[in-house]
Amino acid sequence: MNVTPQSMHFAAALPLQSGASIRAYNLSFETYGTLNADKSNAVLICHALNASHHVAGTYAGQEKSEGWWHNMIGPGKPLDTDHFFVIGVNNLGSCFGSTGPMHTNPDTGRVYGADFPVITVEDWVNAQARLLDALGIQTLAAVMGGSLGGMQALSWTLQYPERVRHAVVIASAPNLTAENIAFNEVARRAIQTDPDFHGGHFYAHGTLPKRGLRIARMIGHITYLSDDVMNEKFGRQLIATNQSEQERNFFYSTLEAEFQIESYLRYQGDKFAEYFDANTYLLITRALDYFDPARRFEGNLSLALARATAKFLLVSFTTDWRFAPRRSRELVKALLDNKRDVSYAEINAPHGHDAFLLDDARYFGVIGSYFNHVVKPAKEAA
Amino acid sequence: MNVTPQSMHFAAALPLQSGASIRAYNLSFETYGTLNADKSNAVLICHALNASHHVAGTYAGQEKSEGWWHNMIGPGKPLDTDHFFVIGVNNLGSCFGSTGPMHTNPDTGRVYGADFPVITVEDWVNAQARLLDALGIQTLAAVMGGSLGGMQALSWTLQYPERVRHAVVIASAPNLTAENIAFNEVARRAIQTDPDFHGGHFYAHGTLPKRGLRIARMIGHITYLSDDVMNEKFGRQLIATNQSEQERNFFYSTLEAEFQIESYLRYQGDKFAEYFDANTYLLITRALDYFDPARRFEGNLSLALARATAKFLLVSFTTDWRFAPRRSRELVKALLDNKRDVSYAEINAPHGHDAFLLDDARYFGVIGSYFNHVVKPAKEAA
Repeated sequence: MNVTPQSMHFAAALPLQSGASIRAYNLSFETYGTLNADKSNAVLICHALNASHHVAGTYAGQEKSEGWWHNMIGPGKPLDTDHFFVIGVNNLGSCFGSTGPMHTNPDTGRVYGADFPVITVEDWVNAQARLLDALGIQTLAAVMGGSLGGMQALSWTLQYPERVRHAVVIASAPNLTAENIAFNEVARRAIQTDPDFHGGHFYAHGTLPKRGLRIARMIGHITYLSDDVMNEKFGRQLIATNQSEQERNFFYSTLEAEFQIESYLRYQGDKFAEYFDANTYLLITRALDYFDPARRFEGNLSLALARATAKFLLVSFTTDWRFAPRRSRELVKALLDNKRDVSYAEINAPHGHDAFLLDDARYFGVIGSYFNHVVKPAKEAA
Repeated sequence: MNVTPQSMHFAAALPLQSGASIRAYNLSFETYGTLNADKSNAVLICHALNASHHVAGTYAGQEKSEGWWHNMIGPGKPLDTDHFFVIGVNNLGSCFGSTGPMHTNPDTGRVYGADFPVITVEDWVNAQARLLDALGIQTLAAVMGGSLGGMQALSWTLQYPERVRHAVVIASAPNLTAENIAFNEVARRAIQTDPDFHGGHFYAHGTLPKRGLRIARMIGHITYLSDDVMNEKFGRQLIATNQSEQERNFFYSTLEAEFQIESYLRYQGDKFAEYFDANTYLLITRALDYFDPARRFEGNLSLALARATAKFLLVSFTTDWRFAPRRSRELVKALLDNKRDVSYAEINAPHGHDAFLLDDARYFGVIGSYFNHVVKPAKEAA
């Protein structure tokens, strides 16, 4: 499935939750499958921290350019593009195409950098809704996302209840716990205290806060995996030398990577620091921190979700300690309190939070079955 | 209970596990209670990451100078200094008095810095044994420690089985998991990539890698606490302003601390960076990584613990995810495989790994009862 990224310009300012606004902006997006005649088969995919609008398919001539949910979305896949018109959109503030801190601020003629306004999940959803308007899509067959993407899917059902028939919320939560915020904060401090950060105006200084980004990514990576899968994948295995694991002596060094988990994390950190923007990292982790639909209802999630009219599928993974199953169960309970139509699957998977991106027969079976159920009314309507 | 720190000089070189050696060194230590006539009532306390020989009591004229296990050790306390002669010792490589990276290398006349040799748990135990020799103590009534201190207590029973009657191993593990090593590695990278680190020779450059130390401490702090206690203590509470939590709007800032958990972590990081030595942090986390008595036995912990003849008390805490109860249970199982005398308590406590330092009636009851049982033979012998 070859795909081509597209871009849409929005000339009207977007008012933001913070009170600021973005005067004009572009959104990068991709589509897969065909929009039916009455435009009732559209599924919007919302991305998490470091993903983009490139959700599925490959770019012509680039074999290894599969989208980040390529295993999930395509012809004959759990979200079947033979039936659905799937839209991937890159969020505002990203570094992968949509307007973000690396772009020029039309108000000043200078790169935004740290001046890019703080964006919330609700702002992203508003921007996504404008994209749907431009595409002529009034109602989504479904909105779907994992992790932070799941928060956007949930927020869609609260901000635009009449525009969403189904919401698929995977490995997500009604808000971050103190521990989640704590990990985000350490990652941000690593970036912000990197001398190459220059208060977020590092572009103007010709530097990149790569040290901070590396640390941020290493922390993130630990929280995406489970203790179990880390032990299985790396355990206490030493970095390979020409000696056997038993014969090999330690390097006895605090500086050299000694264990395989160390070189893995260093590699992940180095790779991330090469392509990810530091200001985007700050913005996206902050959007995670701020999301909390129950806040306006004094913490009462059932009251907060009363507005939602969509049907829901929620999925969580047993070893996910970043967005633990109990957080999904809070959502299930609040939706049931409102007598909403909710399906919930707790998948026994060893891979921690990352499981939402990985092949798993039971997980894919649940998603596939749910979309079979979504497609029927869509087909009847068509 | 007023106490006075002491220091002992060791003129003979200490050979280290790495093959290196320390030519001459000092150990700082304190003692509480009175050594009985036949020197059978000594209890050695081993410290964890950022503690020292100042285990109990206060320094004259300094009211708030309580030792780090002041609640546990003293007259009438669980480890009762009316019965036991308790020794606190600062480990080699520390920054609190014993010879460490901040001191002068007698071989070069320059500050050790990064040249301080890598030290292992086994090396610490050897150095502690020499201190006991110098104090004329052949056999310990008990050796006791929590976390990394528990690893030292365990190692005592393997390196000097004939010199230990009881080992009290609290919130500890037979080795670190991949996840534990991963957190240590991120903390080390934060320090090592701080431009003020200068390859560990920052003393010579007149700098201190405080940014890295702050990040390291913030990461550490998250892992010491449980998700539960963080939610209870901080939850999603915002930093106080003159508005109520409900009325107060977000700052909408990626730079300002917004949530109380953020300012708490920043404060902890700042405080730590003022007093802790970066090279010591690297050495101590590396000692944690390396500890693995089963390694020489192809991972067979039961074989590894066969040498131990001491009686054991092991304690773990339900919400400790850094050294989870299952890690203590591995030790219990391996000791039982060897038909050793083992008591084990799993304390239902919300405080995570930090619980081993905190008051808890059940925990203190277990420790107190165990030492009542230790003291009887000690008394009979006296």
